[in-house]
Amino acid sequence: METNIRSASRIRNLACSSCGQQYSSFELQKLSGCCAMPLVSEYDLSEPLSKEILAKREGTMWRYRELLPVLSKSNIVSLGEGFTPILELNNLAAKYELSSLVLKDEGQNPTGSFKARGLSMAISKAKEFGVTGCIIPTAGNAGVAMAAYCARAGMKAVVVMPRHTPAAFKEECYWYGAEVHLIDGLINDCAAKVQELNADGGLLDVSTLKEPYRLEGKKTMGYEIAEQLNWSLPDVILYPAGGGTGLIGIWKAFQELKALGWLASDIKLPRMVAVQAENCRPLIDTYTGKQANAKQYVGKPTIANGLAVPRPIGENMMLRVIQESEGTVMGITEAEMLEGMRELGHREGLFVAPEGAAVWMAARKLITSGWLSPSESILLLNTGSGQKYLENVTGQAGIR
Amino acid sequence: METNIRSASRIRNLACSSCGQQYSSFELQKLSGCCAMPLVSEYDLSEPLSKEILAKREGTMWRYRELLPVLSKSNIVSLGEGFTPILELNNLAAKYELSSLVLKDEGQNPTGSFKARGLSMAISKAKEFGVTGCIIPTAGNAGVAMAAYCARAGMKAVVVMPRHTPAAFKEECYWYGAEVHLIDGLINDCAAKVQELNADGGLLDVSTLKEPYRLEGKKTMGYEIAEQLNWSLPDVILYPAGGGTGLIGIWKAFQELKALGWLASDIKLPRMVAVQAENCRPLIDTYTGKQANAKQYVGKPTIANGLAVPRPIGENMMLRVIQESEGTVMGITEAEMLEGMRELGHREGLFVAPEGAAVWMAARKLITSGWLSPSESILLLNTGSGQKYLENVTGQAGIR
Ligand SMILES: Cc1ncc(COP(=O)(O)O)c(C=O)c1O
Ligand SMILES: Cc1ncc(COP(=O)(O)O)c(C=O)c1O
Ligand SMILES: [Zn+2]
Ligand SMILES: [Zn+2]
Repeated sequence: METNIRSASRIRNLACSSCGQQYSSFELQKLSGCCAMPLVSEYDLSEPLSKEILAKREGTMWRYRELLPVLSKSNIVSLGEGFTPILELNNLAAKYELSSLVLKDEGQNPTGSFKARGLSMAISKAKEFGVTGCIIPTAGNAGVAMAAYCARAGMKAVVVMPRHTPAAFKEECYWYGAEVHLIDGLINDCAAKVQELNADGGLLDVSTLKEPYRLEGKKTMGYEIAEQLNWSLPDVILYPAGGGTGLIGIWKAFQELKALGWLASDIKLPRMVAVQAENCRPLIDTYTGKQANAKQYVGKPTIANGLAVPRPIGENMMLRVIQESEGTVMGITEAEMLEGMRELGHREGLFVAPEGAAVWMAARKLITSGWLSPSESILLLNTGSGQKYLENVTGQAGIR
Repeated sequence: METNIRSASRIRNLACSSCGQQYSSFELQKLSGCCAMPLVSEYDLSEPLSKEILAKREGTMWRYRELLPVLSKSNIVSLGEGFTPILELNNLAAKYELSSLVLKDEGQNPTGSFKARGLSMAISKAKEFGVTGCIIPTAGNAGVAMAAYCARAGMKAVVVMPRHTPAAFKEECYWYGAEVHLIDGLINDCAAKVQELNADGGLLDVSTLKEPYRLEGKKTMGYEIAEQLNWSLPDVILYPAGGGTGLIGIWKAFQELKALGWLASDIKLPRMVAVQAENCRPLIDTYTGKQANAKQYVGKPTIANGLAVPRPIGENMMLRVIQESEGTVMGITEAEMLEGMRELGHREGLFVAPEGAAVWMAARKLITSGWLSPSESILLLNTGSGQKYLENVTGQAGIR
C-alpha cells in the first residue's frame, strides 16, 4: 500500500503515545518499536472541512470518515455501529434534583455494546491490510464483537475469555463461527494465552491498544456527543474504565474537533470521570498513590465483566485524560451496581450492563461528595446492554 | 382533549378496518364499535409536506412526527427506537448468486426488537390520554418492550406470557419493575388471562391491533425503508408474521407515502411475503384454502416465539396486504430456522432472532421455487436480536 493513496481519510501517521515518535499508518503496526507503548493515529486537521458534510451522511460512526483511518470505502466492515441515541433521564433528574442528566445508550449497537465501534474499525483496517484471521483476549463484549466482524469480513476468529464469563458471551461467539478458549483467570491471563496460541504470529492480535485502530472506533463516541449536543458539551462525562479506550478516545475526539474548528477553540471541555469496580480498581489505586502503577495489581472478578482489567496497558494515557480534564476516579461495589441497574430499569426503562449502572452510581456518589454539582450537565455512558449479563444478576431485580 | 388542538401531527380520525366507519382519534379507543375489528389511523395527506423536513430530524422513528398520532411532543416516551440500519448481505448474495440482498436489522432497537416501535407509540398515546397502567398478552418481545416504556412513562405494567418463554424475556421484565404472569399455553391463552386480570378495565390493554397505535409505530419501518433506499423500494419484502402489525404497517406506510407524493405515484410497490413457522401457520392454512379462517386454529410452540400466534385478529388485514401486493406466504421448520441462524451468523456476523432467520430461509425457498428471481432486489426484516432466544437454541451453533 502506498502512502500517496488519495482517499477521504485524512490520516497522516501514527505516533508513539509515550515519546511521540512517528510511524507509518500505511503498514500494519502493533505497539511502538521505541517504547512498546500504544500507537495513536494523527490526522491532517489544518485543511478546512465543513460540518455541513455531515448533513447527508449515514447514521453510523462512518459519517466521520475523513477523521477515520480506513482508506478505501470497500474495506469498511460494518453492521451499522454508532450514532446511538442520547436519552434524557428526566425521572432520575427529578428524583435527585439534577438540572441535566443524559445517557448515551451504547447497548443499542450491533452485538449489544460499544465494543462494536472499536472492532468494526480494527477489522476494517485488518481487511485493508490483507489480514486473514484475528485473535483477542476479552472480558466478553469485545470478543463477541470481534467474532461478528470477522464473520462478516470472512476472517478466522479466535476468542480467549475467562471461564467465569456468562455463557451468553460464549454462545454468541459460537453463532459467529468463532473458536473460543476459556481460561481460569482474568483478561491478563487470557492475554498470556493469546501469546501462546499465536506464537507464530499467524493471526492479528487486536488486544486493547496493542493495535492502533480500536481507539479510532471508540473516539467516534466523542464526535457523536459533540454533534448530537449541537457542538456544545456536558460539564462532566462518566465512563466505565477497563482498558480505557473509550476514555482516551473521547478525549482525543474533543482535541481533534477543536483543531478542526468544529468545536470552539475556547470551549470548556468536560471533566472526565473514570469509574471502576471496587473489585478491580487499578487506576484508582495508582491515582490515589496506593501504588506507583498497576503493573503488579491483582484484581478480583466483578459482575461488570468489562471492568475486570487489572493491568491496563493504557494506564498512563488514562491518567493523563483525568489530569488534563480535571476529572477524577470513582470505585463502585457489586451491590451498588445492582442498585443502579434496578434504578435505571424501574425509573427509566433501561436495562443496562453493570458497567453502565456503575457509572450512574458514580454520579450519585460524586453529587453526594460535592465534586459534582446538581446544576451541572452530566452525561453517562452506558457501554452495553444488560442482556448478556443476566446470569450475573438473576434474582436481583427486586420484583417478582 | 379537543379535536382542534394544533400540533405537528396530521392525524384526522380512526377508521374501522372492516367497514370504514370513522371514530375520533382524540379519545381513547379500542376495537371498532361497529365490527369489533382493529381501528386504523387516517391522516390529512393532501396538504403539501416537503421531504426536506427530514434532513435535520433525529435518527429515530419520531423523525416522521407529522405522520404519527402523538399530538404533543411532551407525551413522547422514547428510548431512541427506529432508524435501524439496512445492511447489505454481500456474502450471502455471492453464495446464492443474488443481485441485491439487504437486511433491516431491527435487533438494534431498544429492548432488542422491533416491538420497541409499536410500544413506544402505544405508551406515548396512553400517556397522552392520561392512562396510568397497561397490560399485554405477549410471546415475549412485546412484553419486554411494554415493560420498558411503561417504566419510562411512570406507568404500571402487567405482562402475561407463555410459561415456556425463555427466561431472558421474563427476567428483563423484572428489571423494569413489571408484574409478570406465566400461563400454560400460547398467546391466545395469555389473552384470555388478560381479560380476567383486567376485568375491571383499570389497565389499558395494548394487545396487538386491539389498540390502534402500535400499528402506527410499526409502520415507521416502511417509511424508513423508503427513505433509506432513497425513495426507491425493493422488489420483495419478507416479514415474519405473527399478529401481523409489521406487515400491515409497512404496507400502510407505502400507501401514505404515495398519497403524500414522497413516493412516485407510479412506483411499483414490493411484493410482501408473510413468513410463518410450520409449527404455527394459521395464515398459510387460510391462504391456501385449508381453512376458512384462523378462528379455530390450534398452533404448537416454536423457537421463534413471536410466530406462535394461532388466531391473529388481523388475519384479514394481512391477507389483503398479500393480495394487493401480489405477495405470498411461506412456512419454515424449526430445523430450517436454526440453519438460517447459523448461516447469517457465520457468513454475515448477524445473530438474529429465529423469526429473522425464518425470513432468510423463506427467501432461499422462494428462489428455489422460482417465485423469487435472483435478479430481484430482496429486503429481509430481522425483527429481533437472537440474545433472548439463547435458551431455545443452545448447542445448535455448530462450532465449539
Ligand atoms: C460493557 C463494557 N463497559 C466497559 C468496558 C471497559 O471498556 P474499556 O476497556 O474500553 O475501558 C468493557 C470492556 O470489556 C465493557 O464490555
Ligand atoms: C422477533 C419477532 N418477530 C416477529 C414477531 C411477529 O410480529 P407481529 O405480531 O407484528 O406479526 C414477533 C412478535 O412477537 C417477534 O417478537
Ligand atoms: Zn516511544
Ligand atoms: Zn366496522
